[in-house]
Amino acid sequence: MKMEERVISTEKIYDGAIINVERETVELPDGHQSYREIVRHAGAVAVLAITDDNKVILVKQWRSPIAKPTLEIPAGKLDDRDNGDALHAVNRELNEEIRLQATQLKKVTGFYSSVGFSDEYMTLYVAKDLKPVADELPRDPGEDLNVKAYSLDELKALMATGEIEDAKTTMAVWYFELMQLKQAQD
Amino acid sequence: MKMEERVISTEKIYDGAIINVERETVELPDGHQSYREIVRHAGAVAVLAITDDNKVILVKQWRSPIAKPTLEIPAGKLDDRDNGDALHAVNRELNEEIRLQATQLKKVTGFYSSVGFSDEYMTLYVAKDLKPVADELPRDPGEDLNVKAYSLDELKALMATGEIEDAKTTMAVWYFELMQLKQAQD
Repeated sequence: MKMEERVISTEKIYDGAIINVERETVELPDGHQSYREIVRHAGAVAVLAITDDNKVILVKQWRSPIAKPTLEIPAGKLDDRDNGDALHAVNRELNEEIRLQATQLKKVTGFYSSVGFSDEYMTLYVAKDLKPVADELPRDPGEDLNVKAYSLDELKALMATGEIEDAKTTMAVWYFELMQLKQAQD
Repeated sequence: MKMEERVISTEKIYDGAIINVERETVELPDGHQSYREIVRHAGAVAVLAITDDNKVILVKQWRSPIAKPTLEIPAGKLDDRDNGDALHAVNRELNEEIRLQATQLKKVTGFYSSVGFSDEYMTLYVAKDLKPVADELPRDPGEDLNVKAYSLDELKALMATGEIEDAKTTMAVWYFELMQLKQAQD
């Protein structure tokens, strides 16, 4: 089945610091024309950081799109310092956000966060054997974070109450639960 | 710790069909000013639809932000017909995308898809006991879908090869695996 849409023209709507916005005119497979609104993003990393006593580290931070704070696993967008290297971004974010470095670091998977309107691609890592960093990187202005580690039971309670309501964090909690169930089976 | 950002002014950047884009000038807790780019979205639903033979239904569709097709669980944004009712949107999307209705429908959880720059909130449901719909709703132009059901092993293989690379679908696969592991333990 033919499903490809042909781009006829692209209108630049906004060229921002974090996102660019475009409006594409496309030709659908049936020959009709339509429009697609696209938010372009540099990509991001997120880290399921597990402590030696088997807790997951979350950061509490203000999120302006929803005008309230969230509880999230450490994460951040790729920036110029990373040269497209997701692993560099992971180590940088772990340092900036939770002041730790990981001896064990493994890619779990990658995914588009909201592929209906955005090309943001996020890579999820699991980090273990965490140690304090030797040199603390500077934080962004306003990157004022609360950092705390939670057990699986605590994480499940935070999801049940709606205190965790961030996609990558929900994913990470389920992945963490899967890790524990599989470990218990071995 | 004070973390709230005060909105000083909001500049409308774009008023679109699916998204609106704003640029806020905010005062940080330390008194400095900064900018926040925000993509506003009506919200969405997604459905882990499980067949009687324990497979998960995925739809293959063209995604213009990444200029390629994806494999995703049925999903869609809330629209005027839903009047803010996520359950109505679920039934509508199940009809439009996979031509099925669910006798068992349960909310799993809700989350912001990409809270760093967007307020899109998605509610995930699990649907079982699926039956063909009596009346097929019209599809959107270009909503040209391939629909197929996959076993857990097939889903895991699709994730390993990168053929599944959509956040909500990755989440749903992990949740489905959790359901199966817990069921096996009972």
